[in-house]
Amino acid sequence: MTATTRSRLAPDERRSQLLDLGVRLLATRSLDELSIDLLAEEAGISRGLLYHYFGNKHAFHEAVVRRAADDLIAQTAPPPGVDPLVRLQVSVAAYVDYVLANFEGYVSLLKGAAGGNEALRAIHDEVRGVLSDRIFTQPSPSGDTGGELIADTPHNRLVVRGWSAMCEELVVTWATDRREGRDGVGKDELLELIGGSLPALIRQ
Amino acid sequence: MTATTRSRLAPDERRSQLLDLGVRLLATRSLDELSIDLLAEEAGISRGLLYHYFGNKHAFHEAVVRRAADDLIAQTAPPPGVDPLVRLQVSVAAYVDYVLANFEGYVSLLKGAAGGNEALRAIHDEVRGVLSDRIFTQPSPSGDTGGELIADTPHNRLVVRGWSAMCEELVVTWATDRREGRDGVGKDELLELIGGSLPALIRQ
Repeated sequence: MTATTRSRLAPDERRSQLLDLGVRLLATRSLDELSIDLLAEEAGISRGLLYHYFGNKHAFHEAVVRRAADDLIAQTAPPPGVDPLVRLQVSVAAYVDYVLANFEGYVSLLKGAAGGNEALRAIHDEVRGVLSDRIFTQPSPSGDTGGELIADTPHNRLVVRGWSAMCEELVVTWATDRREGRDGVGKDELLELIGGSLPALIRQ
Repeated sequence: MTATTRSRLAPDERRSQLLDLGVRLLATRSLDELSIDLLAEEAGISRGLLYHYFGNKHAFHEAVVRRAADDLIAQTAPPPGVDPLVRLQVSVAAYVDYVLANFEGYVSLLKGAAGGNEALRAIHDEVRGVLSDRIFTQPSPSGDTGGELIADTPHNRLVVRGWSAMCEELVVTWATDRREGRDGVGKDELLELIGGSLPALIRQ
């Protein structure tokens, strides 16, 4: 039984390792630049085997972006047992760090999602959905502390959606500016702006 | 001389009328749905003549979107001689009305610009630039009243850029929700949210 289980798991583990490698390659490349050939070369395996794992280039791209999105969701998970405002600040800082560490791939996701690639749009919607729901969802009653940051109303859902688009624009613009030598705004200032803007928009 | 002038102007006027027609057609259609054939049919002229005026489909689309962008810039021009906050409110209301009246074409512009169409991206950047500059630019010294709404700093430029992305997301989401029967947020509420958010973000 053990041997069977191991041999059944192995391909999944191998596929998972390849996805991790794809995500790492995507940090400094756009999706268009991430080819099966490149992954095969970096992984030291044949193109044929990659096609066996992923079917075709689109499916491969979708799988890599989905893995990257899962990473983003995991890395921005708010710490349990702290004040809602602190949870938001911690999540926001993790989000900014994630984007900076995975810049090219993240920009590719935004571009593809906004430009009409349905698979990327679905992944982007899912990420936004999970991140937004965290703001509205009460932690489990058994949980240490918690409390909603803001009430779950149509008005506030719209605000959070606009705020999400603003956060994406802010971090991408800020990172692009720095890459091009314009660094008039510090990272602390960016974090304060993103983290403080949602409460400011809700209060307004 | 007069006759010569008139005959030299006529093609420009004709082209201009065709662009206006293109913009009207774009209100309820995406760019992909706006073909030279459709414009020819609606204008009652030959496809050949349209190709004479616009060269090819991409150039035609670019010219129509540029005309639509000029309309947006003109229609959102703030009234002279009023308080900066009132100027902002009036511009914002005109912007929302413009988007609602030209919805499909506007969404096409955003989608093309975000998705990597360089011509549409340039037009979108230009519109954002003009609309943002209005917020920072002091009205002429001879002007009645005026004053900057906010100081022109790298921080505030970044805020305005994020706010612009938020406004686009808010109005498109709000309009899409209404089209699909979800109308939890009234138009006055939307205008208040958009108009009040910039001062709230600057104050934060």
